[in-house]
Amino acid sequence: MYELKIITRFAAAHQLTMVGAKCENMHGHNWRIEVHVTGEKLDKGGVLMDFGQIKVHVADIMKQLDHRYLNELAPFSDNQPSSENIAYYVATELQKRIDRPGIRVSRVAAWESDDACATYIVD
Amino acid sequence: MYELKIITRFAAAHQLTMVGAKCENMHGHNWRIEVHVTGEKLDKGGVLMDFGQIKVHVADIMKQLDHRYLNELAPFSDNQPSSENIAYYVATELQKRIDRPGIRVSRVAAWESDDACATYIVD
Amino acid sequence: MYELKIITRFAAAHQLTMVGAKCENMHGHNWRIEVHVTGEKLDKGGVLMDFGQIKVHVADIMKQLDHRYLNELAPFSDNQPSSENIAYYVATELQKRIDRPGIRVSRVAAWESDDACATYIVD
Repeated sequence: MYELKIITRFAAAHQLTMVGAKCENMHGHNWRIEVHVTGEKLDKGGVLMDFGQIKVHVADIMKQLDHRYLNELAPFSDNQPSSENIAYYVATELQKRIDRPGIRVSRVAAWESDDACATYIVD
Repeated sequence: MYELKIITRFAAAHQLTMVGAKCENMHGHNWRIEVHVTGEKLDKGGVLMDFGQIKVHVADIMKQLDHRYLNELAPFSDNQPSSENIAYYVATELQKRIDRPGIRVSRVAAWESDDACATYIVD
Repeated sequence: MYELKIITRFAAAHQLTMVGAKCENMHGHNWRIEVHVTGEKLDKGGVLMDFGQIKVHVADIMKQLDHRYLNELAPFSDNQPSSENIAYYVATELQKRIDRPGIRVSRVAAWESDDACATYIVD
């Protein structure tokens, strides 16, 4: 099996409720987002998929999140903008954009700092 | 499924026997430790578990290893203080401290340098 | 289960055909190669395998790729020198060199830049 990984970043504000501790204060992060796409077969060019195409899709999703207050933004206005939910959101949005048989988003990791990361692993 | 990852570090001395080569001399490393915790369900706050709580548990374990000669320290006095065994030890100690249904330590990686890492993957 | 990871690098030129876009121009990368080796049992020295031995094998493979034009080099003269195929090649060559029961190459990642990586995952 082959897996492609692309790393990108966005900066935003958020605050969490019902978790206790300092996360309840409005604050922000430079999130580092790692998307993973998997598939079994390479194409005639020897690639699973062009990295450039994944980057275009990811940039399109990042544009919606970058320099925003996530708590005011759908779907986070109804759903806590935790790193877990951000990872889930990016995975779901990316899968919609990659509409190819045999290629699927397998996981998205959202690093909220250099030492803390939440990953959504698609079943 | 969701996975949380926390990175931390400790510095210690160790030496390995029965491996041949330079590892038999007493030496040391700045180990970089990556712990992974997994679970299926997020809580009402939208998180699998508070990163801060994992950090407290990991710091507690690191305190036992940091700036020590590992060969003199249980369990490594009876069990080689290899990066493999350090990863196993941290995973086991962390699981004892995270006593929550549905949340488990899935793997711990111990980097003994920037280019060499041993991971214990919990079955 | 235990997993060892070794990171190394090589620099080479390549070009891809049939992918469209700028990859068709001859260019090059500093590839960062991450090899993963797994097994169930540690030896008497407490290690899955000596990191040094893996490094020797990987260095031997890197020597064949470093500072070359990959399109002229077997197997890439018949097979696109994409990061996917480079990862596959390194995994296959490393497995030949690690001839030990119970130890196998599980995956090789080839980073062609700091933000784009292709991994071959051995089934």
